[in-house]
Amino acid sequence: MRVLGVDPGLTRCGVGVVEGVAGRPLTMIGVGVVRTPADADLGHRLVAVEQGIEQWLDEHRPEFVAVERVFSQHNVRTVMGTAQASAVAMLCAARRGIPVALHTPSEVKAAVTGSGRADKAQVGAMVTRLLRLSAPPKPADAADALALAICHIWRAPAQNRLQQAVALHTAKAPKGRTA
Amino acid sequence: MRVLGVDPGLTRCGVGVVEGVAGRPLTMIGVGVVRTPADADLGHRLVAVEQGIEQWLDEHRPEFVAVERVFSQHNVRTVMGTAQASAVAMLCAARRGIPVALHTPSEVKAAVTGSGRADKAQVGAMVTRLLRLSAPPKPADAADALALAICHIWRAPAQNRLQQAVALHTAKAPKGRTA
Repeated sequence: MRVLGVDPGLTRCGVGVVEGVAGRPLTMIGVGVVRTPADADLGHRLVAVEQGIEQWLDEHRPEFVAVERVFSQHNVRTVMGTAQASAVAMLCAARRGIPVALHTPSEVKAAVTGSGRADKAQVGAMVTRLLRLSAPPKPADAADALALAICHIWRAPAQNRLQQAVALHTAKAPKGRTA
Repeated sequence: MRVLGVDPGLTRCGVGVVEGVAGRPLTMIGVGVVRTPADADLGHRLVAVEQGIEQWLDEHRPEFVAVERVFSQHNVRTVMGTAQASAVAMLCAARRGIPVALHTPSEVKAAVTGSGRADKAQVGAMVTRLLRLSAPPKPADAADALALAICHIWRAPAQNRLQQAVALHTAKAPKGRTA
C-alpha cells in the first residue's frame, strides 16, 4: 500500500510518501515540503499548492492520500489557511479517484508514538526509527506528513478497502448542479 | 465590469454574475446555487464545487471573482466547510488569472443596504431593487452572491485595476517547489 501523507499549510505543506503494510517494515518513498510565498495573494498561493500536490501525485502515484484533519479550535489566524490548503490536497486526490482519509493530530501521534499527546521531537524520532532513516526529516511538517502516511497504513485496513471500492464507483459520479 | 460573486458553502454555494460600473444601473447576468450532497465524502464534495464553479466561469467569463471572506469566529462546525469551498472558488479563479477579491459580510451588507448589520431580508430586498428583479433571488445564498458582486463593483475601482494588472503579470509565475 502506497500512501501520500499531507500536513496541510499555505506557507509549508508537508508531503511524504510511505509504502508498506501493517505488521511489516515500512519504506519511505519520498518526503518534502510544498512552499508558497507569504506575500503572494491567497488565490496564487492555492494554485501553487495545487501544482505542488499534483507533482507529488504524478511522481509517486499513491493509492491513498491521508490528510491531517483540521480543527478550528486552534489558532484562529492560521487555521483558515490550513483548511484551505487541506481542501486543495483533498480536491487533487478526489479528482483522480484516489480515496482520501482524514486523521486527527492525536490519532497520528498515538499511532507512531503510542501517545496522543506526544511532542514534535518524539514524533520525529519515531518516524526516523520506523522508516530506518539516518536523521529526522526536516522541517517538522515533512516528518508529520510521513507520520500521517504511517498512521494511515496502520489504521483500519478494512476501512481502506471499502473506501477504495466506493471511490472507484463514484469517482465520476458527483456533478455540480447549477440553476 | 463583469463580476462573479461567490457565497461559499459545501451544501449550498451561492453564485451570481453582475455587470456594470459604479454610478450606473447594474445588470444581473445569472444567479444560481452549486449544491453538493451532504452524505458524499468531503473530497467528492470539493470536486463537485470545482465543477460547478468552472461551469459558471466558462459560461459567464467574469473579469473579477468576489468571494465572501470567511471568519473562524462563527459556528465551528460549518466554518471549515465554508473555508474549504471558498478555497476551491479562489483556486478556480486564480488558475485562470482572474483577480480574486475577498469582502467581509459586513462590507457587503454596508455596500448594498447602508448598514453593516442588515439582516438577510434587507439584503435580499436591496439586491432585488438594485438589479430591478421581480422578486428576491432564492435561496438567500444566491442573493448574497449577487450582493457580493455588487459590493465589488462599487468598492475601490482603482484597486481593481491594480489587481488586474498584477494578475496578468503573475498568472503563470507561482510554482510549487518540492524537495
